[in-house]
Amino acid sequence: MEESTAPTSKKGAKKAEAKAKKEALKAQRAAELAAAAANVTLEDDPAAESYGDRRSATSLLFSHAAEEVEIRSLNESHIGKTVIVRAWLQNSRVQSAKMGFLELRKSGNWSIQGIVMASEEEPIVSRRMVKWVMGINPESFVAVEAKVKQPLEPIKSCRVEGLELHITKCYLLASAPSMLGMTLAVANQPIVNFSDDKAPVGDVQADKTTVPAASMLTHLDNIAMHKRSPVQQAIADIRIEVKRLFRSYLEDRGFKEFEPPCLIGAASEGGGNVFRLPYFGEEAFLAQSPQFYKQFEIAGGRERVFSIGPVFRAENSNTARHMTEFTGLDIEMEIKESYTEVRDILEGVLLYIFRGIQERCADAIAAVQSVYPSEPFLLPEPGKEVRLTFAEAQKLLREEGPPEFANVRDDEDMSTPQEKALGEVVRSKFKTDFYVIDKFPETARPFYAKIDDTATPVGDGVRVTNAFDFFARNQEILSGGQRINDAVELEARIRAKGVDPDSAGIKEYLAVFRSVGVPSHGGGGIGLDRVVAWYLGLPSVHLAAYYPRTPKRLSP
Amino acid sequence: MEESTAPTSKKGAKKAEAKAKKEALKAQRAAELAAAAANVTLEDDPAAESYGDRRSATSLLFSHAAEEVEIRSLNESHIGKTVIVRAWLQNSRVQSAKMGFLELRKSGNWSIQGIVMASEEEPIVSRRMVKWVMGINPESFVAVEAKVKQPLEPIKSCRVEGLELHITKCYLLASAPSMLGMTLAVANQPIVNFSDDKAPVGDVQADKTTVPAASMLTHLDNIAMHKRSPVQQAIADIRIEVKRLFRSYLEDRGFKEFEPPCLIGAASEGGGNVFRLPYFGEEAFLAQSPQFYKQFEIAGGRERVFSIGPVFRAENSNTARHMTEFTGLDIEMEIKESYTEVRDILEGVLLYIFRGIQERCADAIAAVQSVYPSEPFLLPEPGKEVRLTFAEAQKLLREEGPPEFANVRDDEDMSTPQEKALGEVVRSKFKTDFYVIDKFPETARPFYAKIDDTATPVGDGVRVTNAFDFFARNQEILSGGQRINDAVELEARIRAKGVDPDSAGIKEYLAVFRSVGVPSHGGGGIGLDRVVAWYLGLPSVHLAAYYPRTPKRLSP
Repeated sequence: MEESTAPTSKKGAKKAEAKAKKEALKAQRAAELAAAAANVTLEDDPAAESYGDRRSATSLLFSHAAEEVEIRSLNESHIGKTVIVRAWLQNSRVQSAKMGFLELRKSGNWSIQGIVMASEEEPIVSRRMVKWVMGINPESFVAVEAKVKQPLEPIKSCRVEGLELHITKCYLLASAPSMLGMTLAVANQPIVNFSDDKAPVGDVQADKTTVPAASMLTHLDNIAMHKRSPVQQAIADIRIEVKRLFRSYLEDRGFKEFEPPCLIGAASEGGGNVFRLPYFGEEAFLAQSPQFYKQFEIAGGRERVFSIGPVFRAENSNTARHMTEFTGLDIEMEIKESYTEVRDILEGVLLYIFRGIQERCADAIAAVQSVYPSEPFLLPEPGKEVRLTFAEAQKLLREEGPPEFANVRDDEDMSTPQEKALGEVVRSKFKTDFYVIDKFPETARPFYAKIDDTATPVGDGVRVTNAFDFFARNQEILSGGQRINDAVELEARIRAKGVDPDSAGIKEYLAVFRSVGVPSHGGGGIGLDRVVAWYLGLPSVHLAAYYPRTPKRLSP
Repeated sequence: MEESTAPTSKKGAKKAEAKAKKEALKAQRAAELAAAAANVTLEDDPAAESYGDRRSATSLLFSHAAEEVEIRSLNESHIGKTVIVRAWLQNSRVQSAKMGFLELRKSGNWSIQGIVMASEEEPIVSRRMVKWVMGINPESFVAVEAKVKQPLEPIKSCRVEGLELHITKCYLLASAPSMLGMTLAVANQPIVNFSDDKAPVGDVQADKTTVPAASMLTHLDNIAMHKRSPVQQAIADIRIEVKRLFRSYLEDRGFKEFEPPCLIGAASEGGGNVFRLPYFGEEAFLAQSPQFYKQFEIAGGRERVFSIGPVFRAENSNTARHMTEFTGLDIEMEIKESYTEVRDILEGVLLYIFRGIQERCADAIAAVQSVYPSEPFLLPEPGKEVRLTFAEAQKLLREEGPPEFANVRDDEDMSTPQEKALGEVVRSKFKTDFYVIDKFPETARPFYAKIDDTATPVGDGVRVTNAFDFFARNQEILSGGQRINDAVELEARIRAKGVDPDSAGIKEYLAVFRSVGVPSHGGGGIGLDRVVAWYLGLPSVHLAAYYPRTPKRLSP
């Protein structure tokens, strides 16, 4: 078939009504086929062995000469050859009683056109076989044997445009139901509602000529179809590449991976947003970050470490930026001379990631853009990275930002609206969506942040820290900086922040710094989901997660 | 110095009493030095700028020509050159008022001898400086400037035997306390007691001539020193390599990484050993395995996936084999023709890991063996992998195992003592510590295990499954097999196992199989901590974890 179900193609955009009719027709056809199949014998149908419901398809079913290939690996060298292909039947269209078209899909978005045509010559394809194949429900898993041919014209609706499969055998390995909870076309539309509310939101149809779009709830209730959509396959592939680039950049620079625990004995970093659970008669907590454990690795002589793993926030925030469980990419390293060594490694790894996915995931990024269009993500030219001090950033916001921020102070933390406004100013002034805000005032950082004694205080005499945030498209993706490595200084800061140095968790943390000499060190934590979501300009971080966790959603 | 603190060297084994005396002397010396230092002025000491407590050491403190190097990177090309080295001061020994020896250590177990000798020629080293350097507490972090020279004889006590550092500057960057909670020598002794009981166990000294050994509790209470020990550095490095080999083998074969959630909405896989927690007015659970989510990835068209992440068991088992949180290495893949495709990938990845670490981590393995000696881990010759069916294994145990297992049945699960006895038989018969037990009876497997309809039932007519366990040194390290992929078959098995298909978690799981066609698939889960621990023959899996979690221990 040459119509496409991709939402960007007008030709392929079918009306919802037509779809419903088609589904009904298919169901009817399937019922007829089931009735007919019960009476089929070898005498009735010379092709009876070439199709049917088989559950598993061993090589015995196929021709000896047929080679099993993946759709993504098919190329011109296969023309004229007989191949075996396992794939999802994405769509089918009856041309006549003797002929029908299929779309087969595998490996994310690798689709190819299949043709099944009645033939009285070997290999025999009966009309009954054509009818049976055309009755297979979309999103069923099939194995076909086919001859690879060159189509008369490129098949625009399929990723493999220059080849088609002339099917001579077709076995149904796993059948989808006749009515899917969400079709692939709908699954590949932009999500219209990210609310977690259980109240029925209804899936909307923008206008009668387009494929209807669904809510995030419908997507999650149809998790398999959600995942099968080309846009989600592309996002998942990009996410994998981000992790891979993170790891390889750091390993090349001597960083060693480690696994911090999730279960911890105390709500050590501020008790507000922490999950608590009963633990053999005591209480346990879920780690909000690997912060303390990264520092223990440094104290333990591991020099440069990174971790990739889940972190938890019991925050009742139902926004597109929040999840209760997300993946942290964390690093910690010894500092030789200056905390800028840490800042440079973190800036380096993020630029490596952004440039790496631009290069390696161009197709996947294009697939995402086709569903969720966004402005290209601007990166600074090498050597022209944008690093503003907190005070410089606030000045920029006062002078060039919107009027409501004309009086922002250098000694108070930025709000989310301020961050967004600053991002706009930075983008138009420096032509970058990625930048660093450095030297945060101590009021805006936790007790372990190292104060810069050499810097001039800001605002009402507030000291600044060797700590920074990184931003992507106006939103924070990383927090980091130098940590206090001296036990005496650390205890003083803990007290100054109003925390009891003898409280659970803090006591054990301080004890490590007292127990041995700990060298200067620093690090940072990156939110993987946010990096993926904001780089791609997605409307919600939930789209970048495999199984988003929110205050109202724990399944699937 | 040429004495070694390594426990294998008799020469270096110091008496505990001598140690205590030395500590007392050091403390006294440090006090004297502190008093003296208060009066030091440039006039008093021509070398005053060349040493001292600096907290941070910028390049301004060092000679322009000095190059900063890592101890592990030092080689003959550095002889005669002036270098800057940052390292832990591992030990020091005063030779005279004019001369002393140091051991410096970095990057795990890379140690080198340092010499500080009074000199009136440039660069000037004063007697006061020698005394001050000798007073630095062991395990402090220092930066030294030194000339690299060739020692008269190889320094057997250091890993870098062929070089020594003639120190001309020495700055203390982070001071250890005068009395460590656990010395490095003790930290590198085999742990004598793995009990988690809070009752004082006391750290024992086997006899008066050896370095005393400590309990696991003492190790965990001194986490930084525990980690700094060469044996723990080696175990951590081996663990990293296991993960890296796992990932690279699978990525080369088209597997894609994903992250299953830890927080789940239902105790889906048997409710006994699951942690529960309050979740915004509802209840949440911590995942016991990524099983369901791996299968959702297959249903979602991801074809071949793997995950590396934490799993949780609320099991009150205080043994050397159990932890409440551990790292799972999981895979799941589509099956084309047979579940043996899954078995072969899993066997392949484990052999790749075992052979890979033997090759890449020879030094680290030797370091572990020097503390925890064990029989070499035997691997099968390529093509001679040992795969027994469950029935064959039980037969072997009946016929060649100890008499108490003369009546084990083919239709009942193996106990841990049975597994151990079988491992002994397999090792002596097949000369391997790694083997597969396949075709477990359905009574011993969860509801999702696929039954082999073609196999003869065992025992009292119990059917066998396409499921297997892998063993290393008699202990299970992997469970895997083919899963049921048809919703009707799955529901029937769920019912047959006495589980309500409408119960929380199960209902949503079944719904996925009903919602789309899911191809044949299978997979397995490997316990990373166990693979490391049993490969190395460690006495407890807790030694292979970074921060072991047990029913009685959640810190550090």
